[in-house]
Amino acid sequence: MRARSLGVVIGALPTGPLNAITDVNGVLVGHTTVDDGADLRTGVTAIVPERLAEGGLPAAVHTGNGYGKLVGSTQVDELGVLESPVVLTATLSVFRAADAVLTYLMGRRPDGVSFNPLVGETNDGFLSDIRRRPITERHVLDALEGASGGLPAEGCVGAGTGTTALGFKAGVGTSSRRVTAGGSEATVGALAQANFGGVLTVRGVPVPVEEVVPGVRRPEPPGNSCMIVVATDAPLDARRLGRLARRAVFAMGRVGASYAQGSGDYAIAFSTAPPGVPAVPDAALDPLFAAVMDAVEEALLNSLFMATTTTGFAGRTAHAVPYDRRFLG
Amino acid sequence: MRARSLGVVIGALPTGPLNAITDVNGVLVGHTTVDDGADLRTGVTAIVPERLAEGGLPAAVHTGNGYGKLVGSTQVDELGVLESPVVLTATLSVFRAADAVLTYLMGRRPDGVSFNPLVGETNDGFLSDIRRRPITERHVLDALEGASGGLPAEGCVGAGTGTTALGFKAGVGTSSRRVTAGGSEATVGALAQANFGGVLTVRGVPVPVEEVVPGVRRPEPPGNSCMIVVATDAPLDARRLGRLARRAVFAMGRVGASYAQGSGDYAIAFSTAPPGVPAVPDAALDPLFAAVMDAVEEALLNSLFMATTTTGFAGRTAHAVPYDRRFLG
Amino acid sequence: MRARSLGVVIGALPTGPLNAITDVNGVLVGHTTVDDGADLRTGVTAIVPERLAEGGLPAAVHTGNGYGKLVGSTQVDELGVLESPVVLTATLSVFRAADAVLTYLMGRRPDGVSFNPLVGETNDGFLSDIRRRPITERHVLDALEGASGGLPAEGCVGAGTGTTALGFKAGVGTSSRRVTAGGSEATVGALAQANFGGVLTVRGVPVPVEEVVPGVRRPEPPGNSCMIVVATDAPLDARRLGRLARRAVFAMGRVGASYAQGSGDYAIAFSTAPPGVPAVPDAALDPLFAAVMDAVEEALLNSLFMATTTTGFAGRTAHAVPYDRRFLG
Amino acid sequence: MRARSLGVVIGALPTGPLNAITDVNGVLVGHTTVDDGADLRTGVTAIVPERLAEGGLPAAVHTGNGYGKLVGSTQVDELGVLESPVVLTATLSVFRAADAVLTYLMGRRPDGVSFNPLVGETNDGFLSDIRRRPITERHVLDALEGASGGLPAEGCVGAGTGTTALGFKAGVGTSSRRVTAGGSEATVGALAQANFGGVLTVRGVPVPVEEVVPGVRRPEPPGNSCMIVVATDAPLDARRLGRLARRAVFAMGRVGASYAQGSGDYAIAFSTAPPGVPAVPDAALDPLFAAVMDAVEEALLNSLFMATTTTGFAGRTAHAVPYDRRFLG
Repeated sequence: MRARSLGVVIGALPTGPLNAITDVNGVLVGHTTVDDGADLRTGVTAIVPERLAEGGLPAAVHTGNGYGKLVGSTQVDELGVLESPVVLTATLSVFRAADAVLTYLMGRRPDGVSFNPLVGETNDGFLSDIRRRPITERHVLDALEGASGGLPAEGCVGAGTGTTALGFKAGVGTSSRRVTAGGSEATVGALAQANFGGVLTVRGVPVPVEEVVPGVRRPEPPGNSCMIVVATDAPLDARRLGRLARRAVFAMGRVGASYAQGSGDYAIAFSTAPPGVPAVPDAALDPLFAAVMDAVEEALLNSLFMATTTTGFAGRTAHAVPYDRRFLG
Repeated sequence: MRARSLGVVIGALPTGPLNAITDVNGVLVGHTTVDDGADLRTGVTAIVPERLAEGGLPAAVHTGNGYGKLVGSTQVDELGVLESPVVLTATLSVFRAADAVLTYLMGRRPDGVSFNPLVGETNDGFLSDIRRRPITERHVLDALEGASGGLPAEGCVGAGTGTTALGFKAGVGTSSRRVTAGGSEATVGALAQANFGGVLTVRGVPVPVEEVVPGVRRPEPPGNSCMIVVATDAPLDARRLGRLARRAVFAMGRVGASYAQGSGDYAIAFSTAPPGVPAVPDAALDPLFAAVMDAVEEALLNSLFMATTTTGFAGRTAHAVPYDRRFLG
Repeated sequence: MRARSLGVVIGALPTGPLNAITDVNGVLVGHTTVDDGADLRTGVTAIVPERLAEGGLPAAVHTGNGYGKLVGSTQVDELGVLESPVVLTATLSVFRAADAVLTYLMGRRPDGVSFNPLVGETNDGFLSDIRRRPITERHVLDALEGASGGLPAEGCVGAGTGTTALGFKAGVGTSSRRVTAGGSEATVGALAQANFGGVLTVRGVPVPVEEVVPGVRRPEPPGNSCMIVVATDAPLDARRLGRLARRAVFAMGRVGASYAQGSGDYAIAFSTAPPGVPAVPDAALDPLFAAVMDAVEEALLNSLFMATTTTGFAGRTAHAVPYDRRFLG
Repeated sequence: MRARSLGVVIGALPTGPLNAITDVNGVLVGHTTVDDGADLRTGVTAIVPERLAEGGLPAAVHTGNGYGKLVGSTQVDELGVLESPVVLTATLSVFRAADAVLTYLMGRRPDGVSFNPLVGETNDGFLSDIRRRPITERHVLDALEGASGGLPAEGCVGAGTGTTALGFKAGVGTSSRRVTAGGSEATVGALAQANFGGVLTVRGVPVPVEEVVPGVRRPEPPGNSCMIVVATDAPLDARRLGRLARRAVFAMGRVGASYAQGSGDYAIAFSTAPPGVPAVPDAALDPLFAAVMDAVEEALLNSLFMATTTTGFAGRTAHAVPYDRRFLG
């Protein structure tokens, strides 16, 4: 169940209709899950803004902790433009996935000779035989071409099939918020691939895995990574989107992230607003910041609450968060 | 009372003997309070590492949100060296304070022609007539020359005389932790000048000022700033200290910071370890990160719990956090 | 004489009418020269965009080498806005100058409680008794209030009174270029406070001071600093201005800069275009980059060719570049 | 012929025995050239520090202009460590190359689950059918496994097979310098994959391609990219190596780089000094900076002078620089 269905409501802002990143106009999500029921628990998640068909979108990447292999960041830093869907996968598959995104982009622009795929990863090696690099071009193209609106699947799906967070089985989660900023209504959506260490904290209440799952073995290494994607229809340039992206990383602390040294914690933010619309002034950004933090917090909780106990590579098990009144309130 | 005396214990790590930044060997703190009982509620706080007498210390600055006038950061970024005490004061007095630090440094190095004062500020204009720029060279020299070991004063003192945070009267707070990192014992100390927006959160429990102080008027603008100083005797170079500094900013979220756009949130980290000692390997940094986050969280709570209700400029009042069992546990 | 009057023409682009930063619409320059004919050879130079009266301007700071005490950079990084004139002066006077800029800004906005002066410096201590910190608030206000259009004085004037570069007496220099970018005409102006090491190079021809001034003593330390201000009326946001600022630092190499480790090499770029005009697309920036590099190269040469031999503090002398056909062509 | 054989000597510092990056102890270079005599003019160049077998090396990446797809930079930024050979190739092959580096690294560490390949690229699409992505895992492994000491091949070889620079056919070039820094002898080596726009400048003399190759068609787009690798045996940490890397980009201007907006200009610097040796103090870095700039300038000239006229994809031709006394002096 999603956090909200369990009674866990984050903040006072309203959500979009789906409470998902797909509430942002034209943002599609696709998953390819690679799960053999045994050693392979991995996959691909693609976030596809339809407006890419018309040109690049303003975008920014923020590196909370750079122990990761994010592909594509220096060009986004320089130009402030997203020119590819955002794809998430497993660490050792990230370059094959980036190459598949090239295939996708080259197909859409037959005369193009320069493309900048943006592909993130977290290390799902606790539950999946990551060294097999099982992600194929087909898996990535399926996620991209199958991306759709509607409520995305969450938990053990796509790039979240094998991830763990805060001691529990985690996965992919999403959420959204509606706010007024700079005099206009805007939607902010977040999607996270959660795979990081710390002590789960639900609205301020710590839920140590050791207390709710007796005899548990914590995933090792404790610090892995977290990829967060933030989309909004608010008109924002790259600099302002960078300010949003920073808040996405700050929000990890609310669910108990330890911000471990070995964790690759990145946020990517982009705007789907049409070009030419004046950007929300900086002085009016606070409601958007609040929306980002609430949406990321809830997306991370959804990534946990929607995941199910999984036994994978080398017989290791990650346990789902139990639905327990002690912390569900 | 300090947070710990009220029963609010943050994390499981032991504190140093004083639970203060002065637990780090050779780190002194001095305050000059400028308080006329009416319109001026401001001051200076100096953090003075004694080892500066022997040369610069490895140091880093992290900008969480750069809406601030921190003096000295680009040279610290370039060289990774702290070559002056860290001084904190009010926004519009920051340049006079920096000039006074020059006086101090020039006195200590009579042939020197280049010095890089590191001076931070937050805006105490809600309670203090900030446009009067009341800080004099003498105030700064007094804080520097009067700096001492022992437990520093906290709350409405020095650079915290007029600050507010999370809707309440705040000020200066400090805390420390002891950890083992890389096979050695180390102390991490933090000192904060707290002056930022959000909803006070004590160990996960929100304490909105509106609920505990009926009829309160929140300081405006809600987003001000937070200056955090982290000292450690662990041997760390500038790059690793930058990693610590980032966690200091992350820890603001634990007490409810909103990370507002108008807030100048900076952390400065330095090491007092003697030169030549090999740095703690990155792979062993997690205990230091945990220590930074716990120490900063408790320093921020101390800055609030040690502050007292103050009426200042234009008759405005900021209320102290009440000692209330509902959230003190 | 200016470089161009000596036959030294840089690049093929046309200059503006004055070949100066003041060719950019509404950009004024003011100097206060502090020169007692003996130990004090210093001053203040102010670059004042008239449009500041209407609000902040898009701006960026690039740090080529951060061994300097530039005041105001983190807020420009965060917000991308210039909200004060740019003031240049001597290293140890930078904080007094910044405080004077506060006075100026507070006078213009009587209810303001937050201002971000942008004040750069280089170390003129070879020719001036820098430790006396001779710059007063009056000096700075005079430069600001006396700023005007027209061709600014160059050479040993204002913040360039005591500077040296490439072994010779240098000072302040300026230049401009006209270009078409993104379909529109634009002016790019540069002003430099030149005070750095290396071997003077004039259109590719090295002019070692040791060869043209027999028995010369090179200023020590060889690496000082260079502050470059770039103004343009092309519509550019902060990110793009950051790209221009980087090229300003690159252009230092053309005149022979050694990019010494002890040099504080910074460029500040701002746009005077009215708000709401769409920015020049990144793909159309190359002409502006070329204009920046040519204008900075010529501004640096002007700072040298317009300077005159000066004997200052401790009887030290810096020699003007001789007007010699060997390298003037 | 190499620049030096043509009488073009850059600076006064002595070179290492080979005047190549391989003069740095334990640094090997391998090339795989993919050249079908027609449409494919591409390849792989690998720089392999032998000491990687014992652990990561201090390293830094500097982005001069981030219009490129460099793989691996955020982790190098965070940890300051090179943990893979540096591999260079063509833009659209960069992810396949990175995946091949993974294969190489996984073979050397059979239990590893996290690796950070550092793979750069430039766009050789003027002379090579880049959309075919012809680089295979075998090509990359051959370059890595075949890497050796001795003088590396230069010009149209490996990753330089199809590149052009400053209007001419270019390729890979290398050079080295010997300096004394911090009281010790050190070697600095540079290797460049040259593929950028501007007007060739040889020791200050412009050599426009239009003048020396009548009727030439300049490669389009004019701004491509430049990857520079700097190796040294001087003991330097990541921060100091970052300072060296910046100078590598500055040196591009000396040969006439236009620093075009569409150029991905990056420098990677690493140190092969054994761990535990104290770093060269910052105050002693200037000789190393000079060595970097001279070595990069000469490496870039070698990349041009060693290249030969090539007709490739779509019948396009890039002309070698003629050996002409007018500029060879």
